[in-house]
Amino acid sequence: MSTQEATSKTEIQQRITSLRAAIAAQDLTAIIVPSADPHLSEYLPEYWQARLWLSGFTGSVGTLVVTADFAGLWTDSRYWVHAAHQLAGTGISLEKLAPGQPNHIDWLAEHLQEGDSVAVDGNVLSIAEQDRLLDAFDANDITLITERDVLTDIWSDRPTLPSAQLYQHDEQFVAQSATSKLAAVRAGMADAGATHHLLSSLDDIAWLTNLRGADVDYNPVFLAHMLIDADKATLFIDNNKVSADIEKALKDSGITLADYEAVQEALGTLTPEDLLLLDPSKVAVGTLSKMADNVGFIEQMAPSTLLKSVKSAADIDHVREAMRQDGAALSQFFATFEQRLTAGERLSELDVDSMLIEVRSQQPHYVSPSFPTIAGFNENGALPHYRATPEKFSYLDVAEGEGGLLLIDSGAQYQNGTTDITRVVGIGKVSSEHKRDFTTVLKAHIALAKAHFPDGIASPLIDAICRAPLWQAQMDYGHGTGHGVGYFLNVHEGPQVIAYSASTPKERAMKVGMISSNEPGLYREGKWGIRIENLVVNTPVANVTETEFGKFLNFETITYCPIDTRLIEPALLTQVEIDWLNDYHSQVYAELKDRVDGAALKWLTERTKAI
Amino acid sequence: MSTQEATSKTEIQQRITSLRAAIAAQDLTAIIVPSADPHLSEYLPEYWQARLWLSGFTGSVGTLVVTADFAGLWTDSRYWVHAAHQLAGTGISLEKLAPGQPNHIDWLAEHLQEGDSVAVDGNVLSIAEQDRLLDAFDANDITLITERDVLTDIWSDRPTLPSAQLYQHDEQFVAQSATSKLAAVRAGMADAGATHHLLSSLDDIAWLTNLRGADVDYNPVFLAHMLIDADKATLFIDNNKVSADIEKALKDSGITLADYEAVQEALGTLTPEDLLLLDPSKVAVGTLSKMADNVGFIEQMAPSTLLKSVKSAADIDHVREAMRQDGAALSQFFATFEQRLTAGERLSELDVDSMLIEVRSQQPHYVSPSFPTIAGFNENGALPHYRATPEKFSYLDVAEGEGGLLLIDSGAQYQNGTTDITRVVGIGKVSSEHKRDFTTVLKAHIALAKAHFPDGIASPLIDAICRAPLWQAQMDYGHGTGHGVGYFLNVHEGPQVIAYSASTPKERAMKVGMISSNEPGLYREGKWGIRIENLVVNTPVANVTETEFGKFLNFETITYCPIDTRLIEPALLTQVEIDWLNDYHSQVYAELKDRVDGAALKWLTERTKAI
Repeated sequence: MSTQEATSKTEIQQRITSLRAAIAAQDLTAIIVPSADPHLSEYLPEYWQARLWLSGFTGSVGTLVVTADFAGLWTDSRYWVHAAHQLAGTGISLEKLAPGQPNHIDWLAEHLQEGDSVAVDGNVLSIAEQDRLLDAFDANDITLITERDVLTDIWSDRPTLPSAQLYQHDEQFVAQSATSKLAAVRAGMADAGATHHLLSSLDDIAWLTNLRGADVDYNPVFLAHMLIDADKATLFIDNNKVSADIEKALKDSGITLADYEAVQEALGTLTPEDLLLLDPSKVAVGTLSKMADNVGFIEQMAPSTLLKSVKSAADIDHVREAMRQDGAALSQFFATFEQRLTAGERLSELDVDSMLIEVRSQQPHYVSPSFPTIAGFNENGALPHYRATPEKFSYLDVAEGEGGLLLIDSGAQYQNGTTDITRVVGIGKVSSEHKRDFTTVLKAHIALAKAHFPDGIASPLIDAICRAPLWQAQMDYGHGTGHGVGYFLNVHEGPQVIAYSASTPKERAMKVGMISSNEPGLYREGKWGIRIENLVVNTPVANVTETEFGKFLNFETITYCPIDTRLIEPALLTQVEIDWLNDYHSQVYAELKDRVDGAALKWLTERTKAI
Repeated sequence: MSTQEATSKTEIQQRITSLRAAIAAQDLTAIIVPSADPHLSEYLPEYWQARLWLSGFTGSVGTLVVTADFAGLWTDSRYWVHAAHQLAGTGISLEKLAPGQPNHIDWLAEHLQEGDSVAVDGNVLSIAEQDRLLDAFDANDITLITERDVLTDIWSDRPTLPSAQLYQHDEQFVAQSATSKLAAVRAGMADAGATHHLLSSLDDIAWLTNLRGADVDYNPVFLAHMLIDADKATLFIDNNKVSADIEKALKDSGITLADYEAVQEALGTLTPEDLLLLDPSKVAVGTLSKMADNVGFIEQMAPSTLLKSVKSAADIDHVREAMRQDGAALSQFFATFEQRLTAGERLSELDVDSMLIEVRSQQPHYVSPSFPTIAGFNENGALPHYRATPEKFSYLDVAEGEGGLLLIDSGAQYQNGTTDITRVVGIGKVSSEHKRDFTTVLKAHIALAKAHFPDGIASPLIDAICRAPLWQAQMDYGHGTGHGVGYFLNVHEGPQVIAYSASTPKERAMKVGMISSNEPGLYREGKWGIRIENLVVNTPVANVTETEFGKFLNFETITYCPIDTRLIEPALLTQVEIDWLNDYHSQVYAELKDRVDGAALKWLTERTKAI
């Protein structure tokens, strides 16, 4: 994700040494460097990639803790192999984050003494995370310091903040005006009894303003905060990013501009009569640094988070079209890919990535990939968040008479929709074990795809329906089954999450119009990985046969791309499952047949045949 | 449940009038009268049935609120019909408790003014419920008063506390000594860092002491509190209930006796150096009334609650035997019941209840019913908690050529196990609608019965596996799918609960040895109710085919009684479901065939035939 040059182990050691000197000079016991920015975003501008700069670890999630005689980085299982490699020789230990294991907070609470001080930059610390730290530290009389950025003095070549221009989300794809969205947010504020509302989450702000940006890769967002009250709405943003046209459009929607850095001052004008609504997991402590202590808060999910997740019928129509474009591009990709392999060409995981970007970028309204492509062959596919790099990747080589599995998880941002799809293809002669695993994952995918569930059920509660066929075979996977997907916005959005490990508050209720992924998987370490992912829309059950038991939803699958039937062991499928698959392939063929020709049409026709 | 005489509506009006006079005399704005006792039990001694005495409403759950000009009783949907009938003409309004609707706390917060005072007897108010009241009242400056029982002066004929003798749980059925259990509880206290532990929940105390009592119906428990520290364990109990032998046995286990009422004084001796572990939902505010404010608490589930739920292999062996006894008794019941109906005898729901008690009471180690029998014919079966009474019951009458469904939910306490089973039988000629509903519920029952799930998963998360077949048919039911079941103890126990509406804390994890019910249902108001309930034990999956994905559990079904195959529409079942049913019936036949003879054996043989 970062475009920085790889850093040498010696440089990392020097940086940690400088950091320790700064800690000592400032009378601190420890510093925490999280993977976060003032917007609690998934993708960070380089300016905020302090954890990467200090540790050399390039994974997207990890927390560094440094004391006078310890440096450790906590990250979860998907990055252990990767992190072990990158941290070796730096003096930073890999601390494995896993359920039931101590995290960095537990470590600090155990190793620090009464009277010690821990610094973490409040600009990259959410209110929710600060609460967790204070819970652990208060009992042990450890002081948390959030008012300074210890890195300021030592990070001399720190990158600047991004400065990409804003643009309007193409109006042909916008069904609701910013004025109307702002009114809906204000209605939510009124429901909560709030006088003011602070938004720092970038996708909420992009959705609300109908603007997009390019401050980070993959997510079409821009750095900003918003402060809304009953009369005013202020967008805090670097003015250089805003054209006169956009400034006027914002003004017409009742939104005025202020400097990005002015948000703290603005919050400093709130009085005890005001009541500020904010999402504690989406607002940084530092953003509130100038606010008076006696201003009241309402901590809850931002109204826009739910509004944004519930797509309108018009939005979903556009997404279906984006999906047809994406499916046509994928048909071209697969046809070419198979032709080149059949012709004996040696291809790598990196070729898959570049070929995918090429076919997608020819589609109308294409903007960018929606996340870094995961093309993982065999054992690389067993790493759910694998990414091939020029320094480390695999060729799709198989020995004579043998076979392997290639997992491809990719997606694009189009102005008319965000896509995210995973397919697995066999290379060479696949085995019965490959087929058994693939078919069992397919059973799980179908179980969720055809499930009915009560309108409003908390999304984590339906995960067991998906996993049941895998559990029955004593198999499972370590990631969630489904995440929300934005509309030409973040490929990962809330509030819904189909993951049984998640908590089940009412905020995670399933509502008509939400788009989620359906992506069960199976990962055999050192062997292969399987994941079958389509996007699905929450839809009222079409044929209502009963009404006395409440309303039920089911999923409309809106990803149109064949699932490789050559990897299926039909004896493991029930007739109901076979019917679902054949119906799906009929639909894929019908949606795509007029958009492809030549080898791609031939490939599509072949791959959508009924089993 | 109560043995009190029915109270006239006039008497209820007089009691509410007296209560209002007391409220006025004590300068109170409102009083809350919950359905609770100092042990937060399901079944209350008459002494604590104030809500029943004041309102005349006999349902097991309901909360009465009385002000100068309002009297209302909040209860959930299973009691609405019943409560409307009993409250009519009393001046007490029925307030329907339902998800998203205001409960009594919301009502008070809305209708009371700043400075108002609300009384609730702290002896019948859990710490957790007090927290909810304070959350609502503090914001509105309403005072909560818990130190007095306003009823003392007006309830002149208040019953006395029960005084049944304690007895030892028959030692042939006890696998772990009280000494050993106490050591396990102390280990749990040490893990939590507690110096002291207060237990008020009666089944925990009965389990820990290996004693049983008869202070309430259905649950073989006795009124007591326990206070445990590293050296001492004190049982606070009415000394008259304890024989010299039991006192000696307790002493040998390291447990000393004190008066039931002395628990407050004992807690009053704790100092700020002590740390008291208690379950806030299982301890009443009043029990802590003499404890100093500066004594620290650890609020969590009592260690015994988990220990009690995880039955040993020896316990489960005994329960299987109790289940064979129960199954033999049920075979006798059903054979006789069908014979009498065939002979043209007119039978009622009350006959079903008395016949069941008669056959069960002839079994070895029988103690009592484990809950009030629910025998509900047709529309009565649609009320999940229906109970026929001599004043109101139905005969099992069907018109010529027509049919109906009889739902029978019953169970017994045996010294070697607690049973709980629901079966539905057709009376007369059942319809295709009856069969469709019954078969769909059976599909749900089988889905859970044969499910595999990860060891340690939070129990509410597997509910969707059970409900999926019903949801697919746009059907559902309004109660949980499964509750924990005690070992010759409460038929409802925690911590596990298979109900997707429940929260999913780690305390609800599924562990090997837990016994739960599997009881999906379907209720058509005014028509019929269906529920198919067996008890199941959490068991490691027998044939471990995969290990890299963790450990998996499944259920061993330990209820042995035919499921009426005459109510099944086979076309709605898959072969896997048919196989499960036939396997189950083979096992039921094998377990029971040598325990019954004559008509019962003939009935068993017929009803366990493969479909």
